[in-house]
Amino acid sequence: MNHPTSQILCVGSVAFDSITTPFGKVNKTLGGSAAYFSLAASLFKPTSIIAVVGSDFDSFGIFKKRHIDISGLEKIKGKTFHWAGKYHFDLNTRNTLKTELGVFAGFKPKLDERQKQAEYVFLGNIQPKLQLDVLMQIKRPQLIGLDTMDLWIETARTDLLKVMGQIDLLVINDSEARQLSKEHNLLKAAKKIFALMHKLDTFSWPRESVKSGPILIIKQDEHGLLLFHRQSSLRVQTRQSKNKIAAFPSVARNDIGIFNLPGYPLENVVDPTGAGDSFAGALMGYLAKTDDLSFNNLKKACAVASTVASFCVEEFGIKKLQTLTLPQVNKRLGEYKKLINF
Amino acid sequence: MNHPTSQILCVGSVAFDSITTPFGKVNKTLGGSAAYFSLAASLFKPTSIIAVVGSDFDSFGIFKKRHIDISGLEKIKGKTFHWAGKYHFDLNTRNTLKTELGVFAGFKPKLDERQKQAEYVFLGNIQPKLQLDVLMQIKRPQLIGLDTMDLWIETARTDLLKVMGQIDLLVINDSEARQLSKEHNLLKAAKKIFALMHKLDTFSWPRESVKSGPILIIKQDEHGLLLFHRQSSLRVQTRQSKNKIAAFPSVARNDIGIFNLPGYPLENVVDPTGAGDSFAGALMGYLAKTDDLSFNNLKKACAVASTVASFCVEEFGIKKLQTLTLPQVNKRLGEYKKLINF
Repeated sequence: MNHPTSQILCVGSVAFDSITTPFGKVNKTLGGSAAYFSLAASLFKPTSIIAVVGSDFDSFGIFKKRHIDISGLEKIKGKTFHWAGKYHFDLNTRNTLKTELGVFAGFKPKLDERQKQAEYVFLGNIQPKLQLDVLMQIKRPQLIGLDTMDLWIETARTDLLKVMGQIDLLVINDSEARQLSKEHNLLKAAKKIFALMHKLDTFSWPRESVKSGPILIIKQDEHGLLLFHRQSSLRVQTRQSKNKIAAFPSVARNDIGIFNLPGYPLENVVDPTGAGDSFAGALMGYLAKTDDLSFNNLKKACAVASTVASFCVEEFGIKKLQTLTLPQVNKRLGEYKKLINF
Repeated sequence: MNHPTSQILCVGSVAFDSITTPFGKVNKTLGGSAAYFSLAASLFKPTSIIAVVGSDFDSFGIFKKRHIDISGLEKIKGKTFHWAGKYHFDLNTRNTLKTELGVFAGFKPKLDERQKQAEYVFLGNIQPKLQLDVLMQIKRPQLIGLDTMDLWIETARTDLLKVMGQIDLLVINDSEARQLSKEHNLLKAAKKIFALMHKLDTFSWPRESVKSGPILIIKQDEHGLLLFHRQSSLRVQTRQSKNKIAAFPSVARNDIGIFNLPGYPLENVVDPTGAGDSFAGALMGYLAKTDDLSFNNLKKACAVASTVASFCVEEFGIKKLQTLTLPQVNKRLGEYKKLINF
């Protein structure tokens, strides 16, 4: 590896997944948010993961082949997290058949000195309490990204809001955005979610250490995503700034950028597992590589990340990500651009 | 009016609509596919409609104010078509509460010599048998557009396929595309639908009279649309051309252009009624005005039409369309472009 300190750090799950879709099935293949994330992120920059596996785990080679730093992948006595799910015909909905937490039930993220220095930190979809644990350990990075899910929005809202007050980038899907904001309309939802991010009162770091205004990405399955970015870094609660937020919908005014990216249209989707995590990984990877948090570069990063995720879903599990190369990504990115320019 | 012959002709319904949405209700307001279509199309070019109303109809002034030619709007004894519907919270689904066909039940489109010469003809969502009637009467125009619905796909498939073999442009939504093609994946669906369009064996006009390859627009509600365009005008059933269609998904190869346009994100949608018909109207209007059926201009036309439809849904019924101006459309089109460029 080039960097003694990996620029990207991801805390999440490493699991065995058993996946059934209308196009086939796989049994106990390597999965989990940290696996998908790191396989995608490491296309762009050295990546470390913090996660836990059981004594039955033997897939370290997959990470090593991609030069992913797994010194934070703890192996302890017990069974590795096992998830089994079945997708319906439309591939947008699924039933969870099995969730055996195994050693993941006692997961306590512990970062060493090197890991605490990472410049791009992603808090994968785990309990908000564990995400807070990580926030307490790190020094303020360039960017902190966050994923979450319906379960935590419903059962751990207070902790989740504490996390949200301190992170820069939130990546969630449309139903989660609606659930979190209690707004059906996504522009209204985004406005409310922005009000929960970068809050001075809960912020643990000095104002000067924050490099970007809040970034919100709302994913809409195969329909693509909406990106929202406020240029100013911290929200000061004055009447004036409230008015600014109220004037939100017009892209021509104010300091809020909106970008709407359609999904890359695919003819053969076989397994949507990991689309979100590989999107997040490629997004953080591309941002770390370019080290540019301007709105224009965020747009580009979304397109790159969406392209990587489009490859992910064309094969079962992590199969495609294991062999994906940057030239393949760039070629499809060029086609993507043609598809949406007018 | 500048043109003795209106360039655009639309055959469809003129109705009274009673609409309930989570944001309010209106009772017996002017509606129907030909009403929405012509109000949008006439922003760009003189437009005529062929439709029927009952003795209770008195809203001719709305058309006249927009210089829409209603000499083909027959008034006969009986009641005007009345539709009542209620939209659900998400605005994507609705229940039809009432469908009173009235005089529409006996509708027989009759075109005069002037109307038969129209260069842009749109067959609104009516029985395929009536659409065929219109096709028998017209001289071959620059472009024939078609709308249809789940009911006709299910109950009048044979007639619908006869119509489809002769038209140039099909505008349908994603669920209809799936129903028509029996394919869930929209790229596969598009491929199958293309195979049903521009068929030499059912084509009533000489090959030379066809100005454009087949155009398919699949609308995806607030998620925007997919545009497919084959440059070559008529499908010759050779092994070679079959292979060409098989290589479809890549935008870089072959003669098929694909364009993915996200919806214009709106904060206040109050009534989706007429979104599809105003889209079709603005699309045909813009194409008639520019008289350019290149792929690039089709993309632009989709964006213009999507912009017009975005205004339509911000007010109940035809309210917004009645006063909408081209400068308003162009201003929002500029914002739209910013939203999706990267």
